[in-house]
Amino acid sequence: MHVSLASRMQTISPFYVMDLLHRAKQLEAQGRDVIHMEIGEPDFPTPQPVIDAAVKHLETGEVKYTSAAGLLPLREKIAAFYQQRYGVTVSPQRIFVTPGASGAFLLALGVSLNADEEILMADPCYPCNSNFVALFGGKTTRIAVDAVTRYQLTADLIKQHWTTATKGVLVASPSNPTGTLIADDPLKEAIASVHRLGGCFYSDEIYHGLAYGHPAASALQYSDGVFVINSFSKYFGMTGWRIGWLIVPDGYTDAAERLAQNIFIATSTHSQYAALAAFDDSTLAELERRRGEFAKRRDFLYENLVRLGFTIPIKPEGAFYLYANCANLTDDSHQFALDLLAAQAVAITPGKDFGNNQPQQWLRFAYTTSIGRMAEAMARLERFITVYKRGEP
Amino acid sequence: MHVSLASRMQTISPFYVMDLLHRAKQLEAQGRDVIHMEIGEPDFPTPQPVIDAAVKHLETGEVKYTSAAGLLPLREKIAAFYQQRYGVTVSPQRIFVTPGASGAFLLALGVSLNADEEILMADPCYPCNSNFVALFGGKTTRIAVDAVTRYQLTADLIKQHWTTATKGVLVASPSNPTGTLIADDPLKEAIASVHRLGGCFYSDEIYHGLAYGHPAASALQYSDGVFVINSFSKYFGMTGWRIGWLIVPDGYTDAAERLAQNIFIATSTHSQYAALAAFDDSTLAELERRRGEFAKRRDFLYENLVRLGFTIPIKPEGAFYLYANCANLTDDSHQFALDLLAAQAVAITPGKDFGNNQPQQWLRFAYTTSIGRMAEAMARLERFITVYKRGEP
Repeated sequence: MHVSLASRMQTISPFYVMDLLHRAKQLEAQGRDVIHMEIGEPDFPTPQPVIDAAVKHLETGEVKYTSAAGLLPLREKIAAFYQQRYGVTVSPQRIFVTPGASGAFLLALGVSLNADEEILMADPCYPCNSNFVALFGGKTTRIAVDAVTRYQLTADLIKQHWTTATKGVLVASPSNPTGTLIADDPLKEAIASVHRLGGCFYSDEIYHGLAYGHPAASALQYSDGVFVINSFSKYFGMTGWRIGWLIVPDGYTDAAERLAQNIFIATSTHSQYAALAAFDDSTLAELERRRGEFAKRRDFLYENLVRLGFTIPIKPEGAFYLYANCANLTDDSHQFALDLLAAQAVAITPGKDFGNNQPQQWLRFAYTTSIGRMAEAMARLERFITVYKRGEP
Repeated sequence: MHVSLASRMQTISPFYVMDLLHRAKQLEAQGRDVIHMEIGEPDFPTPQPVIDAAVKHLETGEVKYTSAAGLLPLREKIAAFYQQRYGVTVSPQRIFVTPGASGAFLLALGVSLNADEEILMADPCYPCNSNFVALFGGKTTRIAVDAVTRYQLTADLIKQHWTTATKGVLVASPSNPTGTLIADDPLKEAIASVHRLGGCFYSDEIYHGLAYGHPAASALQYSDGVFVINSFSKYFGMTGWRIGWLIVPDGYTDAAERLAQNIFIATSTHSQYAALAAFDDSTLAELERRRGEFAKRRDFLYENLVRLGFTIPIKPEGAFYLYANCANLTDDSHQFALDLLAAQAVAITPGKDFGNNQPQQWLRFAYTTSIGRMAEAMARLERFITVYKRGEP
């Protein structure tokens, strides 16, 4: 058979870290003890009340389709959570339960983005985000950001890069890979500028809840006319359950429902029943304990990376990543990551996965493993750097 | 905020049955006993071994992401199932576990279909299928089919409608809404004709396992160069679990993996562990018992609808639908369905949901409820028709 890939597949890039992960697994198969600091998945198990709720539902045997937008009680709990955490009133009718944040992105861009329209994003940013744009034939305009704006877009940058082809702006706070937040006023101004320009504002809030100082503001605090993408994966510790949510502006609810019916039918029923327990006091208490642990891990990793010669211009306030400049150590971060893995069995993610903004100078370290394991990783990294500096990689 | 829907949303039609379902729920809220024959979801619970496997996995607490293509042991079990049921050898590397057949369609068309390319489909057919095409900016050419070809496409129809813009052909067997199968030789010829024309063949096999005479052939029996979409929802009784699979031709495995990483990350982990038990002997024995029950329901419903004045030119051999011509009774099947619901609280699906091929003459009845309930539905339908014929709806 003649193979003819869709042209969009030329712009949907692979994750370089997947090759690295593959090599890591080969090392493990050889008996090597690999320390994984490349993975964007917390090491904590799903909170017990969430597991219990799922098991209880499964035991009924009635795992039937839910409505496309999700269980109404879950949408109501999500709405109540916005009231409680952000002081924001959101109608459950605007909330769509989705198969992960992935599903939320599909829905948000599916209802709003036309082929050939452009979305502005910070560079560096999470690679999937621009690949969703490519899926619908849209284009991503990557705007290089630096420490001056905390690696976030600003109203000025948005105005400066806006063209007649621009559909909207995606802001991710806390950011993957930089872990930095957009502060409250700059977020407010960015949204206002997008509204003045007549565009859509997409707020990626999947790392909300994982902030270690001032909490991240939701775009909903400043406007009802925004798309908010969120997930039970990261803060709530429910990665493998594949459940997230999308909040749409009023005018998009019918379209979002229609599209969800067609492209998902619905989100996994047992994941939805499980998520009903995600807002229980006992669950939230455990999640806050974990947040404290993440804050300690961040401090530990930050101090060690700086000590070892990496530059981290701003101490990140959220998510579970440090994006470290390695220009003092290498001019090829991808090769550095490959060599580090081969020599010392420590896996990290090269900057190349996050855009075109001097990626060869950056590496992402995920603190999704214990301080004990990270201490061992730092000892190995130190040994590696000592040899590397002598030019014997 | 200015609302600007993506243009694709103009071609992604709503399901008319959703309005009907909404009305049915209003009636139920008023205390009416609605008989649901509109729903494409079996009434049987998920088989116990499948539930048990999910619970066992959940109790580990380790509900982490799997690889994008799914658990290798599950892909191997699916491959073994093809060997056993169809005598076909498929490499697990070509099998992608997806969030339902919905995910399989997203992946199949995402890797292969360009904007403005056309897909040929039988009319009537399941509405989502053409909406997936619209999602990617493609176009559906609906080919009116009738009893002569068992409501299926043929090699001749394909050749006749093929243009320079045609990318491929979608065949669904057993078909929703008609319940008819494409016979083995016509399937073989249809695939061969698409290959000769240099296009893609997409085989929707989500109702496989639910055939009541000669089993449905898989497109894989005649070619490795086809896309096969399947699901654990229907035969395996796992609707709410949202898990299916896609089999791609060799040349598409890398692209499918790349796209799956980006748009799903992975399918729900506990659904995958659950599905590992779907091929157990005890599960399959229960599913075969259910198949026998569906066959009895089909016979019961077929005889009753014919008795009441509907025309069903071919007795369907699969799925759990009868597509009944109601031209003897009404010239507006949609209004008929609405009136039947209001007067007698029996919910069925109007032909309008399945295309443009004389939809006002057709109604879909799902036998996803017990013979006892269907007997009551038939009594109500008979009362309704008696009044309707007298012109007092």
